Amino acid sequence: MTLMNGNQYKESLKKMRPNIYKFGELIEDVTTHAATRLHVESVAHAYDMAFDEKKSPLYTTISFLSGEKAHRWNTLMTSMEDIVGNADMKRDQYRWSGTCTGATCAGWTVLSALWDATFQCDKENGTNYHERLKNYMMHVEDNALALVGAITDAKGNRSLKPSQQSNPDSYLHIKERRADGVVISGYKIQICGTAAAHELVFIPTSGYGADDADFCVAGAIPKDAPGITIIETRRPSDERDLEEGWDAPKVGNITQAYILFEDVFVPNERLFLCGEFKYSGKIIGDFAAIYRAAIGACVAGQGDIMIGAAINMARANGLSQKTFQTTLNEMAIKNEITYGLGLGAMVKGKKTASGTFIPSPLLAHTNKTQVAKLPYDVKVMAQDISGGIAETGCMPPYADFQHPEYGKKLIETLTAGTDGESRARAARLVEWLTVGGGIPGCMHGGGSPDGAKLVVKALTKWEDHASDAKRIAGITADLAEPPKK
Amino acid sequence: MTLMNGNQYKESLKKMRPNIYKFGELIEDVTTHAATRLHVESVAHAYDMAFDEKKSPLYTTISFLSGEKAHRWNTLMTSMEDIVGNADMKRDQYRWSGTCTGATCAGWTVLSALWDATFQCDKENGTNYHERLKNYMMHVEDNALALVGAITDAKGNRSLKPSQQSNPDSYLHIKERRADGVVISGYKIQICGTAAAHELVFIPTSGYGADDADFCVAGAIPKDAPGITIIETRRPSDERDLEEGWDAPKVGNITQAYILFEDVFVPNERLFLCGEFKYSGKIIGDFAAIYRAAIGACVAGQGDIMIGAAINMARANGLSQKTFQTTLNEMAIKNEITYGLGLGAMVKGKKTASGTFIPSPLLAHTNKTQVAKLPYDVKVMAQDISGGIAETGCMPPYADFQHPEYGKKLIETLTAGTDGESRARAARLVEWLTVGGGIPGCMHGGGSPDGAKLVVKALTKWEDHASDAKRIAGITADLAEPPKK
Amino acid sequence: MTLMNGNQYKESLKKMRPNIYKFGELIEDVTTHAATRLHVESVAHAYDMAFDEKKSPLYTTISFLSGEKAHRWNTLMTSMEDIVGNADMKRDQYRWSGTCTGATCAGWTVLSALWDATFQCDKENGTNYHERLKNYMMHVEDNALALVGAITDAKGNRSLKPSQQSNPDSYLHIKERRADGVVISGYKIQICGTAAAHELVFIPTSGYGADDADFCVAGAIPKDAPGITIIETRRPSDERDLEEGWDAPKVGNITQAYILFEDVFVPNERLFLCGEFKYSGKIIGDFAAIYRAAIGACVAGQGDIMIGAAINMARANGLSQKTFQTTLNEMAIKNEITYGLGLGAMVKGKKTASGTFIPSPLLAHTNKTQVAKLPYDVKVMAQDISGGIAETGCMPPYADFQHPEYGKKLIETLTAGTDGESRARAARLVEWLTVGGGIPGCMHGGGSPDGAKLVVKALTKWEDHASDAKRIAGITADLAEPPKK
Amino acid sequence: MTLMNGNQYKESLKKMRPNIYKFGELIEDVTTHAATRLHVESVAHAYDMAFDEKKSPLYTTISFLSGEKAHRWNTLMTSMEDIVGNADMKRDQYRWSGTCTGATCAGWTVLSALWDATFQCDKENGTNYHERLKNYMMHVEDNALALVGAITDAKGNRSLKPSQQSNPDSYLHIKERRADGVVISGYKIQICGTAAAHELVFIPTSGYGADDADFCVAGAIPKDAPGITIIETRRPSDERDLEEGWDAPKVGNITQAYILFEDVFVPNERLFLCGEFKYSGKIIGDFAAIYRAAIGACVAGQGDIMIGAAINMARANGLSQKTFQTTLNEMAIKNEITYGLGLGAMVKGKKTASGTFIPSPLLAHTNKTQVAKLPYDVKVMAQDISGGIAETGCMPPYADFQHPEYGKKLIETLTAGTDGESRARAARLVEWLTVGGGIPGCMHGGGSPDGAKLVVKALTKWEDHASDAKRIAGITADLAEPPKK
Repeated sequence: MTLMNGNQYKESLKKMRPNIYKFGELIEDVTTHAATRLHVESVAHAYDMAFDEKKSPLYTTISFLSGEKAHRWNTLMTSMEDIVGNADMKRDQYRWSGTCTGATCAGWTVLSALWDATFQCDKENGTNYHERLKNYMMHVEDNALALVGAITDAKGNRSLKPSQQSNPDSYLHIKERRADGVVISGYKIQICGTAAAHELVFIPTSGYGADDADFCVAGAIPKDAPGITIIETRRPSDERDLEEGWDAPKVGNITQAYILFEDVFVPNERLFLCGEFKYSGKIIGDFAAIYRAAIGACVAGQGDIMIGAAINMARANGLSQKTFQTTLNEMAIKNEITYGLGLGAMVKGKKTASGTFIPSPLLAHTNKTQVAKLPYDVKVMAQDISGGIAETGCMPPYADFQHPEYGKKLIETLTAGTDGESRARAARLVEWLTVGGGIPGCMHGGGSPDGAKLVVKALTKWEDHASDAKRIAGITADLAEPPKK
Repeated sequence: MTLMNGNQYKESLKKMRPNIYKFGELIEDVTTHAATRLHVESVAHAYDMAFDEKKSPLYTTISFLSGEKAHRWNTLMTSMEDIVGNADMKRDQYRWSGTCTGATCAGWTVLSALWDATFQCDKENGTNYHERLKNYMMHVEDNALALVGAITDAKGNRSLKPSQQSNPDSYLHIKERRADGVVISGYKIQICGTAAAHELVFIPTSGYGADDADFCVAGAIPKDAPGITIIETRRPSDERDLEEGWDAPKVGNITQAYILFEDVFVPNERLFLCGEFKYSGKIIGDFAAIYRAAIGACVAGQGDIMIGAAINMARANGLSQKTFQTTLNEMAIKNEITYGLGLGAMVKGKKTASGTFIPSPLLAHTNKTQVAKLPYDVKVMAQDISGGIAETGCMPPYADFQHPEYGKKLIETLTAGTDGESRARAARLVEWLTVGGGIPGCMHGGGSPDGAKLVVKALTKWEDHASDAKRIAGITADLAEPPKK
Repeated sequence: MTLMNGNQYKESLKKMRPNIYKFGELIEDVTTHAATRLHVESVAHAYDMAFDEKKSPLYTTISFLSGEKAHRWNTLMTSMEDIVGNADMKRDQYRWSGTCTGATCAGWTVLSALWDATFQCDKENGTNYHERLKNYMMHVEDNALALVGAITDAKGNRSLKPSQQSNPDSYLHIKERRADGVVISGYKIQICGTAAAHELVFIPTSGYGADDADFCVAGAIPKDAPGITIIETRRPSDERDLEEGWDAPKVGNITQAYILFEDVFVPNERLFLCGEFKYSGKIIGDFAAIYRAAIGACVAGQGDIMIGAAINMARANGLSQKTFQTTLNEMAIKNEITYGLGLGAMVKGKKTASGTFIPSPLLAHTNKTQVAKLPYDVKVMAQDISGGIAETGCMPPYADFQHPEYGKKLIETLTAGTDGESRARAARLVEWLTVGGGIPGCMHGGGSPDGAKLVVKALTKWEDHASDAKRIAGITADLAEPPKK
Repeated sequence: MTLMNGNQYKESLKKMRPNIYKFGELIEDVTTHAATRLHVESVAHAYDMAFDEKKSPLYTTISFLSGEKAHRWNTLMTSMEDIVGNADMKRDQYRWSGTCTGATCAGWTVLSALWDATFQCDKENGTNYHERLKNYMMHVEDNALALVGAITDAKGNRSLKPSQQSNPDSYLHIKERRADGVVISGYKIQICGTAAAHELVFIPTSGYGADDADFCVAGAIPKDAPGITIIETRRPSDERDLEEGWDAPKVGNITQAYILFEDVFVPNERLFLCGEFKYSGKIIGDFAAIYRAAIGACVAGQGDIMIGAAINMARANGLSQKTFQTTLNEMAIKNEITYGLGLGAMVKGKKTASGTFIPSPLLAHTNKTQVAKLPYDVKVMAQDISGGIAETGCMPPYADFQHPEYGKKLIETLTAGTDGESRARAARLVEWLTVGGGIPGCMHGGGSPDGAKLVVKALTKWEDHASDAKRIAGITADLAEPPKK
């Protein structure tokens, strides 16, 4: 089976061992529990789209491995078109739920990032990671899996390396090497979409040297593998997901988890890196280039919903969209910048020897700097247009609107260009998008903008520019950097 | 008694009739109920500061009316120094609680705004509002009251005037005129600090004409007057105020309320405007000039805490403040801009015939446009420095950290430059300030930036500038606006 | 001959009739006159690059028409790669001269823009413009011509249409239709690179209706055709091009011209549109999409030189580049945004029925809005790093440095991290790039940003976004635009 | 004589020894020479305003020293009102000429900055600089002098101190100490308004230590003192000042000069600091606080003219101001920010023991960071509104418009909403303000923004904010800066 639909997907999740907690309690069924079901719904929608005539070209593609049609997030990215498809699918997903669909995103990208690194490693070291990865990808495709990318380690003290940390679990690491595999322990945190995934794909969070070789481990395991405990994070106003009513939209939502690995066994056939530190930097580099080229589409998709939400609020207030057209236009422009700049990174991408396609790191990381900036402007504009009840959701809770004595009057307070309930819903959406549960964490998600700036610094040809400028200015003096004192 | 301390203030609140609801339930005691006590604590602190040697010059001043020392928010603002004191007290309050202390703010400002309008009205119409207001202010000072300014009406359809609304309650209005007073009805919404106040001072939300004379009513009543029902709003993540633990700071906080006026009687001695529509625009104009000159200090004070919170996060991550000095500097600059620009509005203020002092509307409204912009940049910078766990509070809830099985390990996931609990607290503060319950609503609070821009447009001397430019360019042609087609 | 070198190119220009004036005087030889020679040098360099091993892939390509290698600006753009090549060549040209090389730019783009419009027009009207255009393009390729695109009309009163203008010459128009061609008159202004071109290609500056059919004329003529008079414009500090010394760089430069058409005869074989108003909008639309996708590369290339110039100034001041690394990084990011966003427009481009490739108008026009913004920030940063002598070129003129009495001391005033002359040259380059003759006019060049915003408005799917947001918010009410009053 | 008019002022200048050069030639009479007369006219206007009923309150004040009415720039600044007056006069001057009037600005401010430093120095060292300064100020007032502040040294290698420079003349310094005075040499550069001044007041450009004591010299001399040679700088397009026609406005303009001091004798009674390095930092600190509080008014005044110039261009194009109202409003807001923030610095100023009034350095330097930013945005907006002919002055020179053959037609090319000449003039003004001779150098004038940021860093209470944030977050751990490694 290469393709499955949303219901099949949900059934498959139900079969897994419950090992996810929130608010101190075990979640027995992620497909129905209020804390996780919305993300599952988002992912189920993506599965369903494989069977939607109009949308299937976005949500499926022809697998490079099998030559068959597969869910897009189950295939290797081998061309500019594949990365463009990644971006366009994400924008469409954001437009559907208003927020991130993690379980069809990072895990997939991790596999494409491992592809060339394992190829190189095998070539230089005689390992057979690439073959294992290929087999795993066929397994993923055959079973139409949802994957999470477990990347971010707990990290501990940021001024120390992994091996220098007082607690080795600050980074996921190899604890024991056995003939048939390895035992790993450590903490991966802030992992998006875990609740809705079947398996976890893990890689090191950064590039390391020989001292940190034990922290250079990559592989894949089922989410419910023995030794895995998952605790969901608490996002802004996420209690509202647990409630009846309209205080938060109930179409789809994200989850973020802390994953505790305690003596987890990874069999050899699921190990894709095991101490070969030399390739750790390349893996995260290729991951970041793909991810940060596509992330502009995510925030653009959410920005599209902010535009729509702001228009709805204007009308709910009795006003025309035209009143705010200048600001709306500015929102659209900012959305297209992150989207289009990411596409630009794809144009300047390159094919690897092993067949993957990696966008221009310079342009992808430039895009990340803007993803950490422009969506925030768009949020402020959405709040500006929408007015006080949207800005901080400055309305009584749903429960009060149901109150037998004053509930009806409360509804009257909100009635304006439309009925009070519709206006409350419109305002709560703006709140949810800008200061509520719908915020996807675009600043540090997939890595921080400071890291992106370091890449821009590393890849800009400062001396070439200085030399060109010297020539144009007619300067013949040396003009080198002054000596360090 | 002119001054009272925090405990006396809390005792005085306990004596009032409970008429505030949240989540569908009546709050019996605002000083202890988890939904309201934090704002009461903020206000209690301000009362206590009257007796603090170092802080009393900020929190008290010599009353213009009595010549005695009084709580600053119980006195008339009659000089530049008074408005500067307003601003400086607010910045200090934000630094204390991290957020807004509504019950010492807008109600006070409303009284100063009514001062000159009642004076003019009396002079031109033979009314005696000014005398009543003076008596009321002595009552306020003598009883050291906390006041809220009930300004924002429900408004209904924004493209219609008050008298055109299908529901007259969309705006507070006179329902019946009696010999001894008036009966009023309608909805005032998003009223800050209501839970912690003794009395409500109400004015029209805008300037109106003759058709809307019945909506031009100003006065004061006890918060628990018959016919008043108050429902608290739901702010981002405000459930956390109701909980144990560290998921939200517990020093102080804001409240915002919807106030339903149902056939509320206002006796003549508490009526300060009753249909004299001509003065409605002046009242809100003077209010806005004072309020928007001082509001820059509020956001600067919150910005100071964002700076501190970001520094704490950097160190909690094991990094030096120096790593982020460029960004921290930029945050400080943005704080000082809104603060200093507000002060600038005070320099160009003017004394009214009746004795109040009104900052320059042009500069005050310019400041409002920046208050609707710069603090958002400061928030983004705080998130940028602080990292992923702070950006959206991407950590498990407090309850999970207490879990007998995995709680200890979760604490380990957060241990970095400091212990896990301290780091969690530091991160939750950034979340609370930027996407949580601490957001004061600086975009639309005290009126929207679009209104401010209209004032800037009205007060800028476009033709003077065009004329100067013509002279400098040596143009002798007419260059008038083209005729409308 | 398909390719020629710089010297051959200059020789070909010398043969043309002198019809260009500046400062009231006729320029006899554009290749040697100080007012025009620098632009000629820029173009000559581009010709030479056809023979440079490393650069020829940028400056030449295989002609779609002839299948032979041709100067890139002599070929039709038929693929994404062709438009990318356009952009990359321009960035390289800016890096060579520091500014714009107009005579290899707009005229070329006009031909690609005419391609599909003439194809459609012929199909629908039985005209044979497309064949003529093909023949003309072969003529261009065979003779390796430099072309200017004469687009911007004088326009007259902006609130009136062409046919409503008091002076018909405000727009280029058909004055007389003859059997063998047409006679045209009117003013094309601010035409970049005219001095260095062989021929003029002209199109209407906008889309028009039936009333303005006579203004819908497109064609090509030699620059020295009878009836053509050209007057060069005066750019900031451009007198310095006429001087000895270092007060302006002397590598390359732009020219802008006013072209007076007085009863100019255009033979039928060079006419590509003659009154078929329906296609006027399409021509300018396709032109703008190509041009505005590539223009980000222009400003990025100039921004690269600003980076280099700022680094040189830092060192000339005795300081390390590191002192300013944060700002330099920000400059690089802004350069890559306009470059990469333009590339993104190419990804989403579409092939026309006739074979040309047109970038996404939405993304191309979005890019234009940023080209009208980000380079200005880059300029300010270059000035910030470079210090006072660079900001406004606050140094004595070259002549004073040669003064027998005080010249040597003046040089001493400028000696810092390097010798005084080198530092003066470095500073003059910054001045030239930011407030001098090197400014290419990126705000309104190729059309104004306001026009771009109108396109963004027209192409953004506002109702789709509003509808998605309604669905997510769970709103079932209608929420249409309020009726006009 | 305390007050003189413009003609008297010009007569007084004519009597001075010619020692100013430009383009290698001596300027015999600064009041008539095209390179200097426009700045003289600006200053003459300021003198005349002392006799203008409406303007005299701005241009004169009551002297603190004599108790008599004096030109404002001849008096000590001893109160907030005095600094406000400084700012308001400057805004008015910019509105008059469109640019800076240097000879009534920095020299004046230097005297107020020296006041308290000399007072302190005398008290601590038994010197009598303060008395000398008082006498000098009476001389200034009695003779109604125009002064320049000679502050910026040539500086040489920025990474070395004055005494470490290979050329001691890089900084003005004491060469010889005599019984009756000192002999000084060195270069002061980029000195605004020199051509229009009577005397030079000089101070060190920064604070120094014991090693650099000889560079700590302050005093006053006539501009034509023996040993003084002055060379004017070349600003963008400033040749147009020398021409007939409309290519640059001819109302007023700035000058900037390089001043060579060669063995200049300064008598004791004109020496205000002579090696007492301890006070050098204070002098420049007080200067910067005053100057940077007032400089926001300068750029606001120029911004006012940009607003007017843009409105004129809109109308000259046949369009209404309303078309651009959003942008115009944004320009006005940016003008008021720098103006109002500077005023805010004055509110928080402090009286010195000796009687001067010094604005808040934190707010004044914050303002400088904005003066280095917002006016650039205003320029871009002026260009955006004004269109292509204004952006880079993309029109033929005046001479061509006079050409007997094509001049008339050229005028036709520019005729739009008004006649061609008026439109050309309107466009040239925008060019002059944004990329031409009218640019005052607000980035580095009066010191660089980087220095301002250092002051903001030094004066922000980082640890207080961190401590407040810790308290609010409930953190009890230490959270100090990590130890240096």
